[in-house]
Parts: sequence; structure tokens; C-alpha cells
Amino acid sequence: MRPTSSFMRWVLDSIADRGLSVLGGLTRGPIESLCQVLVSERGEASGTAIAREIATRYREATPAQRLRFFDYLLGEQWLADPKEVFKLAKSYFERPTATALARLFPVAEPKRQELFRRINMGPGGTETIVSMRKDLLALLPEHPRFEAINADLVHLLSSWFNRGFLELRRIDWKTPALILEKLIAYEAVHEIRGWPDLRRRLQQDRRCFAFFHPALPDEPLIFVEVALTRGMARSIQPLIDIDSRPADPEKADTAVFYSISNCLEGLRGISFGAFLLKQVIHELEEEDLHLRNFVTLSPIPGFRKWLAANRGMLPPGVSFEAIVQAAQGESAAASDHIPDLMLRCCARYLTEARPDGRALDPVASFHLSNGASIERINWKADVSEKGIAQSFGLMVNYAYRPSRIERNHEQYVKQGRFARSEQVQGLLEEKKTA
Amino acid sequence: MRPTSSFMRWVLDSIADRGLSVLGGLTRGPIESLCQVLVSERGEASGTAIAREIATRYREATPAQRLRFFDYLLGEQWLADPKEVFKLAKSYFERPTATALARLFPVAEPKRQELFRRINMGPGGTETIVSMRKDLLALLPEHPRFEAINADLVHLLSSWFNRGFLELRRIDWKTPALILEKLIAYEAVHEIRGWPDLRRRLQQDRRCFAFFHPALPDEPLIFVEVALTRGMARSIQPLIDIDSRPADPEKADTAVFYSISNCLEGLRGISFGAFLLKQVIHELEEEDLHLRNFVTLSPIPGFRKWLAANRGMLPPGVSFEAIVQAAQGESAAASDHIPDLMLRCCARYLTEARPDGRALDPVASFHLSNGASIERINWKADVSEKGIAQSFGLMVNYAYRPSRIERNHEQYVKQGRFARSEQVQGLLEEKKTA
Amino acid sequence: MRPTSSFMRWVLDSIADRGLSVLGGLTRGPIESLCQVLVSERGEASGTAIAREIATRYREATPAQRLRFFDYLLGEQWLADPKEVFKLAKSYFERPTATALARLFPVAEPKRQELFRRINMGPGGTETIVSMRKDLLALLPEHPRFEAINADLVHLLSSWFNRGFLELRRIDWKTPALILEKLIAYEAVHEIRGWPDLRRRLQQDRRCFAFFHPALPDEPLIFVEVALTRGMARSIQPLIDIDSRPADPEKADTAVFYSISNCLEGLRGISFGAFLLKQVIHELEEEDLHLRNFVTLSPIPGFRKWLAANRGMLPPGVSFEAIVQAAQGESAAASDHIPDLMLRCCARYLTEARPDGRALDPVASFHLSNGASIERINWKADVSEKGIAQSFGLMVNYAYRPSRIERNHEQYVKQGRFARSEQVQGLLEEKKTA
Amino acid sequence: MRPTSSFMRWVLDSIADRGLSVLGGLTRGPIESLCQVLVSERGEASGTAIAREIATRYREATPAQRLRFFDYLLGEQWLADPKEVFKLAKSYFERPTATALARLFPVAEPKRQELFRRINMGPGGTETIVSMRKDLLALLPEHPRFEAINADLVHLLSSWFNRGFLELRRIDWKTPALILEKLIAYEAVHEIRGWPDLRRRLQQDRRCFAFFHPALPDEPLIFVEVALTRGMARSIQPLIDIDSRPADPEKADTAVFYSISNCLEGLRGISFGAFLLKQVIHELEEEDLHLRNFVTLSPIPGFRKWLAANRGMLPPGVSFEAIVQAAQGESAAASDHIPDLMLRCCARYLTEARPDGRALDPVASFHLSNGASIERINWKADVSEKGIAQSFGLMVNYAYRPSRIERNHEQYVKQGRFARSEQVQGLLEEKKTA
Repeated sequence: MRPTSSFMRWVLDSIADRGLSVLGGLTRGPIESLCQVLVSERGEASGTAIAREIATRYREATPAQRLRFFDYLLGEQWLADPKEVFKLAKSYFERPTATALARLFPVAEPKRQELFRRINMGPGGTETIVSMRKDLLALLPEHPRFEAINADLVHLLSSWFNRGFLELRRIDWKTPALILEKLIAYEAVHEIRGWPDLRRRLQQDRRCFAFFHPALPDEPLIFVEVALTRGMARSIQPLIDIDSRPADPEKADTAVFYSISNCLEGLRGISFGAFLLKQVIHELEEEDLHLRNFVTLSPIPGFRKWLAANRGMLPPGVSFEAIVQAAQGESAAASDHIPDLMLRCCARYLTEARPDGRALDPVASFHLSNGASIERINWKADVSEKGIAQSFGLMVNYAYRPSRIERNHEQYVKQGRFARSEQVQGLLEEKKTA
Repeated sequence: MRPTSSFMRWVLDSIADRGLSVLGGLTRGPIESLCQVLVSERGEASGTAIAREIATRYREATPAQRLRFFDYLLGEQWLADPKEVFKLAKSYFERPTATALARLFPVAEPKRQELFRRINMGPGGTETIVSMRKDLLALLPEHPRFEAINADLVHLLSSWFNRGFLELRRIDWKTPALILEKLIAYEAVHEIRGWPDLRRRLQQDRRCFAFFHPALPDEPLIFVEVALTRGMARSIQPLIDIDSRPADPEKADTAVFYSISNCLEGLRGISFGAFLLKQVIHELEEEDLHLRNFVTLSPIPGFRKWLAANRGMLPPGVSFEAIVQAAQGESAAASDHIPDLMLRCCARYLTEARPDGRALDPVASFHLSNGASIERINWKADVSEKGIAQSFGLMVNYAYRPSRIERNHEQYVKQGRFARSEQVQGLLEEKKTA
Repeated sequence: MRPTSSFMRWVLDSIADRGLSVLGGLTRGPIESLCQVLVSERGEASGTAIAREIATRYREATPAQRLRFFDYLLGEQWLADPKEVFKLAKSYFERPTATALARLFPVAEPKRQELFRRINMGPGGTETIVSMRKDLLALLPEHPRFEAINADLVHLLSSWFNRGFLELRRIDWKTPALILEKLIAYEAVHEIRGWPDLRRRLQQDRRCFAFFHPALPDEPLIFVEVALTRGMARSIQPLIDIDSRPADPEKADTAVFYSISNCLEGLRGISFGAFLLKQVIHELEEEDLHLRNFVTLSPIPGFRKWLAANRGMLPPGVSFEAIVQAAQGESAAASDHIPDLMLRCCARYLTEARPDGRALDPVASFHLSNGASIERINWKADVSEKGIAQSFGLMVNYAYRPSRIERNHEQYVKQGRFARSEQVQGLLEEKKTA
Repeated sequence: MRPTSSFMRWVLDSIADRGLSVLGGLTRGPIESLCQVLVSERGEASGTAIAREIATRYREATPAQRLRFFDYLLGEQWLADPKEVFKLAKSYFERPTATALARLFPVAEPKRQELFRRINMGPGGTETIVSMRKDLLALLPEHPRFEAINADLVHLLSSWFNRGFLELRRIDWKTPALILEKLIAYEAVHEIRGWPDLRRRLQQDRRCFAFFHPALPDEPLIFVEVALTRGMARSIQPLIDIDSRPADPEKADTAVFYSISNCLEGLRGISFGAFLLKQVIHELEEEDLHLRNFVTLSPIPGFRKWLAANRGMLPPGVSFEAIVQAAQGESAAASDHIPDLMLRCCARYLTEARPDGRALDPVASFHLSNGASIERINWKADVSEKGIAQSFGLMVNYAYRPSRIERNHEQYVKQGRFARSEQVQGLLEEKKTA
């Protein structure tokens, strides 16, 4: 089967060779005219060729041209007929039946969505849409008027990247280099420092899984890195030590999810993480190893900043500098109380809720919402510069226990209850008594 | 990678084993309650498990239960908030901005769509949705109230089965039997009479292509059968003769598309045919054979019925019986004028438009709309019982000429002009002079 | 990657186009001259092109030409230098060192082997060699002089089809039709009567496995059909009943190997059966079903003939006609003793040894040699015409118990001991006492 | 399908679990005893298990144990029966018929070969054999007595790695990292300096192909690197410059084979190179690029050494130091004559024959024997340290012209004629006149 792209080249070449007008002046005209044609009747006959041309044109566009393009998409022609909308909405309001709503809904759809659907028909269409959204997200802060376009893209992408269409694939050293180099590029938590580092992370005592979408077969959407260990790992450096010796996976009792990274900026906010973790836990169980615990080793991105705003929690005389020194120091004679202090502060931070009841810490929020519990807080767990800067080197294990996931999730969402281990509970209570 | 279904079985088993309540009483409760849960917060944590349960429950439901289920889906809870809709529609009417529409659109979406999207997340979800639509279509004539549900399904399926997500595959004798047996089942034009018939249709002088969707990897959505011939085939029986000797494809100059069949009733109206034909023409060109013509050999389903309603066209003394006899007879001494008469009547029928400007004959309408032309009408082209009954054995070749497709399409759609060969034009003009 | 055959076509076409002489007059000359060239220096440069030409020429040869070809291969030039052989053999005899033997061996190799190895280099070479051997086997009875050529082919094919190069594949309804139709063609024990029959044999309560060789990727070499049953099946008809209802494999406790067929006549005597059965037992164990027994349901091809030669065993008054009637009859009032009599006679037959200590019955010999035991003899087990004709409808279960395989094999080979169940032993002893 | 290795583990575990004796004391005994058993009757029943054990034992053996093992293989029991050999050789000598030879040949085969064939039956068997040969080759210089074992291995491996069993695969950035890292390891001509270097060599203006054998699916046997260029590349540094900009392959007219490397030491002398180059030329022609020339850019390994031995060729006053300076210098004012001098010397070197008529330079010998011609000698072509050391930085293009390959090969082999371009011929003649 030829790649579709060769098909499109053929279509365009045919057209060119035969002196036809199909894309006529358009092939050199602005992308805006092509969009016009694509949703017209001519678009029905030559849709994929035009869609492809739009993709090419968009790829080659300058930032200024893209900005203009998005403004064009805000135009009236891409909206809906206000009178018709109002008329049908009124009917529905007066008599709220399924039929009345079925009449209103297609009319209330921004015409932009049909445009995006047709762009998607061309070769590389999905890639184009995803990359449009990436650009749009970058523009949004300065150009909030594009939020309406973003809403359309989110609507379509959420539907197209429905969990039912995703494919879980194991990533290992047999995976094509083309995909592996993307892991290096996209790893967002603990940087992969080149191929030898990647290779170590794919050895026998590691697992890596990613979700893919059939329309982007070489693009991991999200991936998770797992270490198989004896006992629950309490610090990250040994896990990402290139020279560490691969352990025997048969002897591991714990799977540590130590890094989970989204890959495509254009899919930001379209959430795969919870599905990924749950299915990976299943895959690991199927492997007939002897795993009993499924935990993360997670960063605590907001801890230090939060503590700075709540310095009152610290006993007099404990400065940030002292904490940092303790976190970095080999021995910590004079500051024996600091580790314990930090664990207690951190327990408090992790169980702190925002006004909406969700966890203040975004990583905590993600895992608690997935039904995990706050299992253990670890001192000297990430002594990298970044780790010290974020959280004085503390990290946390969240635990996924299949039998508690649903209850934890529900209590978290409905009652704002943060599932936690006795150890963490202990840290909180000591705090109170202290 | 384990099949997702094993994953779900594991989730449910886990739940069962651990005495959890997630699906609790639900697993034996009605499908309606499961739908309720699926769109709730609990659905977020255990969504795929619940979706799978709904799929199972639906598959096992009786016709009466399905009817009740669809009525349930008409319920108010699956609609939209009429007040909110009205309020936002009014805002949009008063100030029709992209932002105002972006606020209205998600609120005007029937909540049913979210339900369907979540059902799609489970294993086999897409299959379930497609099969729901199949049932719905069967119920519609008697229960037109379900049209609103159908509209939602069409909306989602059109988006999910976007051309950009389809995969073209060649079907040949190396294709898994599992898929081949579906061709036998779904061939709608010229029945495939068992495996030897199918095998003949996949020999060296034949081609067969189908579209597939990644979520239904073993289900052809639509397929086309092609014969590679010298000259434009003028009758179907030699093409479907099991005992005919496979010709040398290197000597063929014409590709005859002699059968195109949609497979899944649940996707009725979601159109793949035009895309399929165009891409197959491309695939054939890529093959480095010596093909110069791409034509169909198509049935004329409405001809006889139309002629019955327009008997006035027939000269006195020409009865249907006489036509049938001529069509079936070996020699046709006494009725030499009948073939010519029929060709002229048929040319007239094929160029007859409906009030909306489209061709009266549905097959003609499909090909003309794709940009093909009416190339040649053939007498004694399908002498099967069905062929005689439909069209006195006449068939028609539509020709696809890449260089004319777009112009033909546009003229057909905008001006109601039916592209035709000189031969067909001649038949029409003789008619007039006659 | 292009198929090699297109490569060869290109080589030959290049040669032809460029007016070169490489195969010169040869391309139309006899296959014998091509063989001459293939082993010459010119063969080194254009070896694959010449090899391919030999394959084509051989395929198109008439029986008379093939006969002439084999006689040609007996020619002196394809032997070894007798003087040299003698000289080196004498050296080795006088001083039997590894070095002396290493000098002799390559010289004592028939030059024919190098010819076959070079033919194998061309596209489809292995297929050609296998098909040469097939023809040769058919000629051998009348032309025993070809035995020397056969010996060379056996030597090469045994080495090339070494177990280490074979690939086990599961055959099911997802297998390409191209391969499935070969099962229909090659099934040698219980004829597969068309596609519906085959389909039934690949349902959920069945398994089918085959060995393949990488050089013949679409050719099963040997395959076995397995039924998963509750209890040890005692008759074949229910197993091959197209209309029988597929059982739940989870409820099966026994895997019944009811048919094992070699496919390629050209590989006759190159033995895969023992490897296949053992690996299939393993595959089944890996499947996590609940199988406890691995047995065959096997024909007894020589029983009736043997009994005819040993009629003295039958009590007076028991005629073959009576036995046949009993075997076919619904009820068998008058002949109650016949079943038991037959079981006893059959037990004796199955444990009868040839002068070399192997079992007289060839099927028994195969399974005993593999380490199986004679487990149970079944009356009315194959009431087909063939079953009655071979063995009065009796069949036998051989049992494979992994823990006993090696011991059974060794005792069979070294001491001529036939492993048997107590039931079979009982039949033999009753016999003695009788 | 489970990997065979799991099968073997199962077999051994079964045996262990069931308290069987099969490998009994053997599993801890020396590899020699296992070999004994493998060729015995017990080997027939448990052959693959024993073969696997031998593979494991061999892998874990110390150098001393391996040495002992090879000595063991020289033992009398692995030879042939000298009396029998002599008797049959005499018969054949007296009456040299195909039948007589067919009797002698199997008897004259060292029994070692059957041992190796049986080792090959186990999982990883082929790998074991190849690695035994690797060790053997390392030992041969000091232990020439092992040559007899080597002869057996060469005999078997040549037959097993017959061209007909090899698979050509394109290597690109979609190839599994597992295979790519082997290219880095095995590149023998121009070292690949890590992943970015490799990546550059797999860009759009490059091609890479390798042969694989089905029994070693992750092991390239030999690979060639090709650059697509405009004009015939005359120096290597630009080709292996990581930062060079990938060119448009559509604009290339020449394919430059700039590196060809054998991978497995254990297959040394089993020749794939000629086949590889010819098939790759074909693959490139099939690609529909616009390639007209297929040339190498090859090192001249023996030039400097040869010149050292033939210093008389150099005019007085031209020292090696001066040549090196000229080869390395940016401008070469004073030494304008040196480049021309070197070209002429080199032309003479490249056309210099050994006593057996083959080219003195091993790389020249390879390409001339393949039917290539000496096309152009290039000054300052490889200014790396190695290039200067081998050949004062000179490299040579050999040209493959499909239409001349066979003639060139034949004239080279039969008449010792070295095909060369007019330019090279000119260099030789100038030399003479000089």
C-alpha cells in the first residue's frame, strides 16, 4: 500500500500535468482561500488534495501568517447563523424535547469544526490539527480572543483521542530509534541524557509504556517509566544512574512509576495519564513477576514555594539555607531535627486543599484524583539542583492499590478526603501535637 | 500487549475478588443505571469497566429491552438545560461573536453524546456504538422519535470515521479467512457463492480493496472488486464466472470496478465510497500495469420500474414480455429493434433528474456526484434473474477520468449537468429525432 | 523490499537489454548446460540468475526431460575423483587423525551437492530442490539407480530443515486463506471437506499448529489438529462433525491430537512429527487452560490386514462379515462378545514387534518411539468406510505424559519394551488366559 | 507463540519437578558428557533440552574449558570408522559409480558434524555454533590442530547460510535500536562515533542495507552504507561529516558505497559481500530515483606498506614525510608533483597481481572479483590518521556497471585481467613513459 502522501502528490501532479484548474490560482494563493474552497462543493471532489495543500501551507507559514490565519478563523463565516440559532433555541426552551434539541445542535456548531474535520481528511491532517493547537496555546496568553478556536479544537481532539482509539505499546530496546529519540526529547521529569541513559532505562529491571493514536503512529502521546525494585524506592538518583547494575526483575516486589511525561503540546489538557497508569498496572500484573506494590516516586513541585509563603511553620532559627545544607550534606549532625521537620511540613503541604477541594500540589492532585494514596514522604530523595529548588530534595510515593482506587477517588472528589498512609497521618498528627 | 478485554475482565475480577462495590448491585442492575454511573464521578475512576459492562449488557439485551433503552436515552437528563441554552443563544443573537458561540455550543450539545463517548472508551466500545445505530435504524421507521438519537450517533460516527482515520488495505488470497468470510457475507451487488467464487475474484487479474478503521481492525467498512480486462467489459457474467481463466494483468488496459459494497449497516449514510474509488484508482496506477481506463460496470436498479411508469415511451406492440425475451434470447431475429430501443430508453432514464437536480437513479447519482461520466450502456449485460428484473439485463459503464473528475463534479452539483460520452449523447439525440 | 524474484527478472532483463552474453545461448539451451555453468566461474558472477533459470526450466520440463536430467546428474562429473578419494582414504586408514579425515571428507562429497547448494541460492531455490526430490521419489521404485541422488538431497534437506530453523505457528481463522487451503489439500488422516469443515476445526475448542521454514513461508511442513475435550475422546466422528457445537475450552481437561499430516512429499522421511507434538503440548500448557491429559486418537492402519493373516486368533464362527456388521450395527445383541474380542486382538496387534524390535503398526511405532504409551483401544471409534476397512472401526489413544516420555522412549529403543496402560495390559493378559 | 527458550525451560523444569533422571547427574556434569548423550538414543527423546544445556554450559565455560572441549572434539569417537571408510573408498575406486560414492560419503563424514547439527536444534543453537567458530578462529593460530573442527564448521555454516536463506533488509531510523547499536559496534571501515553519527548516516540522502538470517533475527550479518550524491564522491570526510546537510536524493545521480562491514567473526570467510552489493544496486534502481552510477569509495589498505617495499619507484628526494605533508597540507606549493606521482604509484599498486593472479590489494581483489572496475584514484580522499597511515590519504572508486559485471569477473578470474577506466589506464601509461 502506498503511503497516502504519495497519493496526494499524484493527485496534485495529475492536476498539474493535465493543465487543470482544480486548485487553480489557489495553489499559490493564501491558505484562507483554500479553507474557503475546502468547505465548498469543490472541496467534496478534491477534498483531500486541498486539505493537503492547507497542511503544507500551514507548515510553511510564518508566525505572522499564522496569527492572521487564526484571526481569519474568528470571522463571521466560521460561526453559526445567529437568527437560526436563536429561533431554534427558543423552540427548545419552549418545548424542550429531544427533537427540538437535535434541530438546534447542528446549527449551533461553529462552522470552524467542519473545516477542521475536512483538514483532517488529508494526509497528515491530524498532525496539522495538533500542531495548530500547539501554536494556538502559545498565542492564547497574549491573544485571549482565540479561546473560541481553542474550544473547538479541544472538542474535536477529545473526541478523536478518545481512550477507545488509543493503543498501548511497550517501549523497549527493540523499539524503532525514531520513537526512542522522542522519549529523549519529551521526558519532562528526569531528563534523559542521551542514548546510554535511555538504554539503561529500558533494561531488564525497567518497563516503559506509551499510548499511541493510529493517525500518529510514530508519536508517543504519553509515556511512563517504571523501575522494578525490591522495596519502595525512596530516592531518584539510584534509579537514573546510568552505571547502576540491572537487577533481576524476578526478585522485584514493587513497581515504581518514576516518570510520566506528556509528549504533544497540542494535546495539552486532553488527559491520558489516569488511563495509562491503570492499564500499565494491569500489564505488569499479567507478566507473572512477583509484584505486590505499585507506587510512584513523584516530585513535589510547589513545596518550597509554599513553605516560603508559610515560613511561620518553621521554628525560629531554621533558615532555608540550613535546610538546603541539610538536604545536600553527607552527615547532618547539627541539624538532626531538620529531616523530621521537613517531612512534617511536607505532609501538611501535600494534604492542603485549594478552595475547590482539590490538592494544592498539582502532582498530588493528579494521583489523588486517580484514586492513589499519599504513601510515604522521602527525605534526600532528589538531590539534584532542580529537586532542591522545588522541594528541598523531598519526593513522595503515591500508592495505587487496585482495591481502593475507586473508593479513594470517590471520597476525594465528593468529600475532599485525601487518602494517606498511617505514616503520613502520623506526620500530620505529630505536627499538631508539636 | 494483552488485549484490552483481558484488562477489563481483570478489573472486574479485581473488584469482585476484593469485595468492592464499584459496580456493586449495578452489575446485575439494568443498563440504564450503568449509564447513569458512567457519566458521574464514579465513571471517571472505573469508566472503562462500566463501559464494558454496558457493552455486554447491550449485547445480551432483548429487543424489548433495547427499545426501552432508546426511550430512556430520549429522557430529559440526556438533553441540555433549556434555560441555559436559551440564555446563551440570546447572548449570541445579540452579539454574535466567536466567544459567545463558544459558550453556547457545549451547552447545546445533547448530554447523550458524552454518554456515547464514554461507552466508546471501553473495550469493544466502537463496535457497541455501531451496533446500537444498526438497531436504531431498524427501529426508526416505526419509531421516528428516535431520530434525535440517530442524529447524535451520526454526528459522532462521522467524526470518528473521518477519512483521515481510515486505512486502505488490499484484500487478496493472503488475507485472513476471518476477513474474507466477511466479503462473502457483505457483497451486496453480485453475490459471492462460497469460497471458490471468492478465490476466483482474488486471482491475478482481479483486485480488491477495502477501508478499515483502527478500532474495528477485522471489519471491512466498504470494499470494491475490480477486474483487469482488455477493453471495457460489457457484461457481468464473464467477470463472475468461477471457471473463467485468469488473464494476464500485464495485458489489461482497463480496470473495471464491478462491485462496491458497504459492510456495516450501523454506518449507513457515512460515506466512504468516493474516497475509496479515488484512492483505488491511484493504487492501480502505482502498480506499473498498463491501465488506461478506469470504469465501472454498474447496475441500473430503477430502470424497469421507471419504464413501467413511462410506458408511453415504448412504441406500440413492444411489451415487457417481449423485452425480457429479447434480453434472455440467444438470437433475437424478430426483435432486432429492441436492444437499440432499450439503450435509448435507458440513456433517457440515466439522465433523468429529480426535483433537486440529482440523478433519479441512485447508482448514477453516486458516480456522477463523484465526477464520473455515463460512458456506455450495455445490452445483455446482466442476464441473471435480478438483472432482468431490475433493468432488463442492461448495465452501464461509468468512467472515471482523473483529469475530468473535478469539473464533472462541480458541473453536476452546481448546474445539474450530467457528464456523458458521445455515445450516450448520441442515444439521447437519436431519441429526440426518433 | 522487493521480492527476490523481481530482482532476478531485473538481472535477466538487464542482461537482455544490454545485449550481453551471460546466459547467452544458454537461456534457451538445455537445463544440463545451465548446471554446468552454474558450478563454473561464470556461476560465481551470475549465480542467482542462472539458478533462477534452472528453476524455471525445471518447472517447465516434461517428465521425459526430468528423467533425462536425473540421469545426467548420475554422470561422472557429479561424482568425486576416485583416485584422490582412494589416496586420502588410505592415508586416513593408515593414520586415522582428524586432520586426515578433514582432507578426505570434502573430496568424498559428490559434486552434485555443490550444484544443489547453488541452485538453492536463486529465488525459489529451496522450493525447486524440494520439488526435485518429490519427482525423484516418484521415480525411485522404477529407477532405483537414482537412490544416490536421493541420498544427496536427503543429506542437504535434513541439514537445511534442522529443527533449529523451523518456526511453529498457530493456525486459526485469522490465518491467510492461502495457507488454510493447503491444510484442506494436505490433511491426510481425516479429509477436510471444504471450508465450513475447516472452519469448524479452527473454532474455540480446537487448536491447530504447524511448522514452517523461512524459505517456504507459505508452506506448512507438517500440522496437527487438536480437540479440547472433557475426558479422552473415544471416537472420531463427533470430533469432525461440522455441525457440532463448539465447547468451552475452559472446561476441557484433555487435548486430543486427532490428526497429524505431513505436507510436502519432497520432504518425506525428514522427520518433524516428534518435535511438533512435544512443542504443541508445551504451547497448550502455556495457555492457562485446565488440561491434564495429552492423548492422540489414532488410526490403526494395519490391523485388519494383520488379522486376516492371523485368522487363527478368531474363535470359530466369527467371520470378518460378522465383525463388520457389529462395528456398523446400532445394537449388537447377538455379537456381544465381538467388541471385547476385537479389543483383545487389537491389543495384541499393537504390541506386536517387527524383527528389528519396532512396532509392526507404523502409527504405533511413531508414537512409541516418541515416548508415548498405548493408552486405550476404542471400539466403534471410526465407523467411516476407511475406518472399517483398515481396522474394523477401532482406533487407539496414545498418551503423552511429559514425565514418562524419555523413559518410555529409551526402553522402547533399547529394550523393545512397549509402554502401555493397565487397561491395555489387561486386554493382553485376558487374552493369554483365554 | 512462546519463545522456544521458554519451552526448553519448561522441559527442564518438568523433568526437574517430576524427579526424572533425563539429564540426571549430567546437568551438573561436564559439557563433554552432554555431547555424548546428545548423539545417543536418549538424545532423540530429549534432544532440544540437552542441546540447550550444552549451549548454556558452553556460554559459561572458561577459556581453559573451551580449549579442553575442542580437544575433546578431536577425539576418535568424532571421526569416522577408518576400516569402513577404506573399504568403501576402495570399492568406489574400483568401480566409481554414483551408488558406490553414495555409500562412502556418509561414512566419511566426521561424526562431529552430526553433533553440531544436533546442537543447532536447541534454542539459540545457531548462535552457539557461530560463537564456537569465533572462539576456534581465535585459537587456530596457536593450535593449528583444530583446523579439522574448523573445516566441519565451515562446511555446515556455508550450507546453512546459503544465499537462498538470507533476507535483505533496509536499515533506517525506523529500525529497532537493538539492531542499530550493532551497526555502531560492527562498522569496520569508518568508525561510527555514537548515535548522532549513525543518525546522519541514515538520513534521506543515505541508504543502508543488511543481510539477516532467520535463525539470528536481530543480528545483521553484513551491511553496506551508501551515500546518494551528485557526481562520484572523491573524499570520505564530507560523507561522514555529522554536520553536513542532507541532500535531496531526487537530485543524486550516483550511489556511493562507502562502507561495507562483516559483523560476525564466527562467519569469517563465509562470503556475502558480492551478493549484497548486487542486490542493493537492484534495490536502488527500483526506487525510482535518477541514479546512473554505482561506485564505491574504498580504502587502499596495503598501499603505503607496498610503497615502502618499492621505494625505488619514488624519484630521489621524495620522502614519505614529504608525501604525508602534501597529503595533509592545505596548499602544497613546493610539492605540486606529489599528488600526480602518488596517483601513478597507486595505479600501479592496484593493478599489481599476486602469484595466483589475484590483486595484491585485498579490497581491490574483492571488487574486481565481483566484476567491478578500477574507476578513479583520489588524492586527499581520506585525511584521517588511519587514511594517511594506510595509503597517504588516497582512496579509490570501483565502479559496478551491471552490463559489464559478468565479463569483468570472467576476464579477471580466467585471464587475470584487471578492469580499469581510461583514466587509470592513463596513469599506468604515463608511468611507463616517465
